[in-house]
Amino acid sequence: MSNTPPPRMPSTPSANDRPPPVASRGTAFSWPIAPAAQRVGGSAIRELLKLTERPDILSLAGGLPNPDTFPRERIAEAAAQLLSDTSAAALQYGPTEGYRPLREQIATRMTARGRPTTVDEVLITTGSQQALDLLGKAMISPTRIVAVSNPSYLGALQAFSLYQPCLTPFDPRVPASLPTNAGLCYLTPTFANPTGETLDGAAREALAETARCAIIEDDPYGELYFDAPPPPPMACHAPHKTAYLGSFSKVLAPGLRVGYVVAPAALITQLARLKQAADLHTASLDQRIVSALLVDGTLDRHLPAIRARYRSQRDALATALTHHLTGHARWKTPQGGMFYWLTLVDADGRRRSSTQLLELAIAEGVAFVPGAPFFAAAPRVDCLRLSFATLPAAQMDAAMQRLAAAVDHCPVLSEDVPAPACT
Amino acid sequence: MSNTPPPRMPSTPSANDRPPPVASRGTAFSWPIAPAAQRVGGSAIRELLKLTERPDILSLAGGLPNPDTFPRERIAEAAAQLLSDTSAAALQYGPTEGYRPLREQIATRMTARGRPTTVDEVLITTGSQQALDLLGKAMISPTRIVAVSNPSYLGALQAFSLYQPCLTPFDPRVPASLPTNAGLCYLTPTFANPTGETLDGAAREALAETARCAIIEDDPYGELYFDAPPPPPMACHAPHKTAYLGSFSKVLAPGLRVGYVVAPAALITQLARLKQAADLHTASLDQRIVSALLVDGTLDRHLPAIRARYRSQRDALATALTHHLTGHARWKTPQGGMFYWLTLVDADGRRRSSTQLLELAIAEGVAFVPGAPFFAAAPRVDCLRLSFATLPAAQMDAAMQRLAAAVDHCPVLSEDVPAPACT
Repeated sequence: MSNTPPPRMPSTPSANDRPPPVASRGTAFSWPIAPAAQRVGGSAIRELLKLTERPDILSLAGGLPNPDTFPRERIAEAAAQLLSDTSAAALQYGPTEGYRPLREQIATRMTARGRPTTVDEVLITTGSQQALDLLGKAMISPTRIVAVSNPSYLGALQAFSLYQPCLTPFDPRVPASLPTNAGLCYLTPTFANPTGETLDGAAREALAETARCAIIEDDPYGELYFDAPPPPPMACHAPHKTAYLGSFSKVLAPGLRVGYVVAPAALITQLARLKQAADLHTASLDQRIVSALLVDGTLDRHLPAIRARYRSQRDALATALTHHLTGHARWKTPQGGMFYWLTLVDADGRRRSSTQLLELAIAEGVAFVPGAPFFAAAPRVDCLRLSFATLPAAQMDAAMQRLAAAVDHCPVLSEDVPAPACT
Repeated sequence: MSNTPPPRMPSTPSANDRPPPVASRGTAFSWPIAPAAQRVGGSAIRELLKLTERPDILSLAGGLPNPDTFPRERIAEAAAQLLSDTSAAALQYGPTEGYRPLREQIATRMTARGRPTTVDEVLITTGSQQALDLLGKAMISPTRIVAVSNPSYLGALQAFSLYQPCLTPFDPRVPASLPTNAGLCYLTPTFANPTGETLDGAAREALAETARCAIIEDDPYGELYFDAPPPPPMACHAPHKTAYLGSFSKVLAPGLRVGYVVAPAALITQLARLKQAADLHTASLDQRIVSALLVDGTLDRHLPAIRARYRSQRDALATALTHHLTGHARWKTPQGGMFYWLTLVDADGRRRSSTQLLELAIAEGVAFVPGAPFFAAAPRVDCLRLSFATLPAAQMDAAMQRLAAAVDHCPVLSEDVPAPACT
């Protein structure tokens, strides 16, 4: 941070006759960055996304929803309607907790999913990402034990890290792996990012029973199931100790930045105070657009089409993987969401590094995200994430053909790589 | 936080045969709130706003912009245009730093104001409030000395407090009052909230020369001048050590939640990393609406009308104050912005408590914000803030008549109130 650019202002005559200041105009300046903030790096994913936007690259790196799935025309109609209101309420400041009709609609939907919810148990956030930040702020003090699935959503690890927890891996399928001294635990039980895996109902119930700590249940993908609906959220089993995070980014449009937390009212009150200091409230027009699309049934009518779209992209990737990568890698087929998780182990048990592979893959014209950054501890070098959300189904075969060519050029790792825990 | 409501889920048979868990369903649960978060209270202003929305109350409490000033029809046109784009870019994820054309437009405008700025020196934030939170995160470590004008914008004090600074008052008009060991200082040099005061050009230059520390210059009101433009921002005098905060909330519409930071690129990079963990990016549609209104000149055409509107409301309040409060309080006439700052001292030097007065005022049907919460240290009980932004000019006389009636019923304080530092 010490290489600040030289100031660009011409020196102007000073109106006072004080002694020369220590840090005058023209002096380089070191911003006093706090130690906790210095540890926050950029997201490898978002940095990669910048590189892989080259038009010649077939990217399975980003989790960008396919824009064809956005109900754009209905959003335009709702915006026009909201902005025709002469009270201009959609442009005015609003309550920190969120637009009340939207909170009521979310409460109704959560109740229908098996977590009876009142309006004061709902906080609207600026995307789910803000909920992670607010929960970190609210509950993480330095060195507090925060148990996280390993791997975990990178944005959660980033958000929590700023509050200096002791991040400790646990396996949500094994409740006994949850440290007894954990203050909270974090998991994405349904179609997880990055693994695509889903915790079954019995495991959810067992974890909910066992956990002494607060549970952060991140659920951006729960509505994107391709066959049977997933088991009920953890919040249904342990509503009193679970903060459930939902989002409209994957089912309506991410640019609206509308997410929410469902949790007991006492926690919502605390989170709302923190949100007030963080951004006063989430954008008014965007909240009202989402509300309008819930009122008129757009979301519910739209969900089967969006599921069908992503299912077809998943199917195309499944076929392409089987065709091109069999014998080169292992994977499980995700039942929803946006992600495949591959382990680069071939038929002879030889492994490859996904970081090494990425350079070769970009040279071949295909991109993915290496797995290591998703691990809070013991990062695995032989895993990678493929998103099937963005690339059209017709391009999946070409993408996997290129990936297979890259694997062919990628050296195998020596024998001392630990056995995979991730497949 | 211990009075969490009892869980609402019926007990279901457990599928496992583990010993009974310590915190089972049905047990009350204490959320593990971090000590720093426990200290963050709600904003007195926003709590009050809830009370003073009664239709019989003439409220000068909130800083809500007058919705008549929002260019609603142009915003509707811009939204329709943006949402007719079949690429749906206005609904997709965007870069954390912000929509690049908007960043370029802000750089151009700042350059024209005397702070030569490149695009990499601009970060779009979810309102200015988020900029305050990000700057606190980036630069405040526990016990760091943060010098703040006294009084200061309440939202800044709230945002900073979470990072546990030693908040130390200073007087921006007296650079020598800035502690030499301060890590940063915060001020609103133009039409300040709550005092309405403006730092003159010589004082800005003197402070910029003297400060060894980083300067956070909060400028939400700078464009709302009623006569001559205010002096150039502090950022023009010390661009290398100043983070300048701007907002479109007061000149376009606050519900869009679009603000920005202008600072050296090294700091912007750090802030962008923190913003990524905080909310990924600011809402895409809202950023593009603001950009469209800058491109087509709407903002610049609109500014004279908005200034004229607020000037007329200021003038009406000035007349009403002179008519009804002369001899009961002292004030200076603000040259822009949204606020009057009153000291409740009568012609005989007797003082009154603004907190006591508020209860009486609400009974009379008028509301304001007591001054004490705006002080980081040595809160004054005899000051209050009147916003002239929301109430129509025609109602100012009635409002001040009611306030005068409340003052008549308000007991005077005993003699030991310290002399006012705020007028």
